[in-house]
Amino acid sequence: MSNLSVHENNIPASRVKGTAVYNFQGEHLGEIDDIVLAKHSGEAQYAIMSFGGFLGIGEDYHPVPWNQLRYDREKHGYLIDVDKDRLEGAPRYATNDEPDWNDKAYGGRLTDYWGVPPVGYI
Amino acid sequence: MSNLSVHENNIPASRVKGTAVYNFQGEHLGEIDDIVLAKHSGEAQYAIMSFGGFLGIGEDYHPVPWNQLRYDREKHGYLIDVDKDRLEGAPRYATNDEPDWNDKAYGGRLTDYWGVPPVGYI
Repeated sequence: MSNLSVHENNIPASRVKGTAVYNFQGEHLGEIDDIVLAKHSGEAQYAIMSFGGFLGIGEDYHPVPWNQLRYDREKHGYLIDVDKDRLEGAPRYATNDEPDWNDKAYGGRLTDYWGVPPVGYI
Repeated sequence: MSNLSVHENNIPASRVKGTAVYNFQGEHLGEIDDIVLAKHSGEAQYAIMSFGGFLGIGEDYHPVPWNQLRYDREKHGYLIDVDKDRLEGAPRYATNDEPDWNDKAYGGRLTDYWGVPPVGYI
């Protein structure tokens, strides 16, 4: 990764929550709810994107491989190259139905869908 | 980093808060309060360790380069090779006095004290 990012765009993980996510067409897709980290290396594996819900009910979460996101300084948000239809079909879960982040089968489903493994995965 | 860590020790960043930190002598030094991430790469730069305080007052925070921490599965906590005296002298800040994480001079002070730059810093 570029040296530029260091000491220029550092942020406490707790404050990433709520950052907007857009696609390349400029559509607002949702917000970052949390980040799944590898405990040892400290590398972000997945961004958990929250979206949907009416009147605060029925919110869903999409885990997206972190390396699919690019931070856009002008938009103050993350960009991801996916259209809304494709995102609709991506693995998701509802509140209170969080997956086991150490379940390799679930990780495999995410890799299959998104076409890329998370950072550091071989 | 080892492939072993992937899909075996993933954890949402919001849940790392409160994880205990010990030194190599087994002394309990504090807890993880937050993790400073590079927005672009998603790499953990610093663990913010909270410690001290009496009756909940006077808590202080030490930013420690993430690569100084090693996760210990048996202790369910992070290990850092520092004795209490050395930690006492490390850069710290009080609640409501959080540093600017993009201040290069502050980053330089941390690098000087800890002897290592954060991950990816050249």
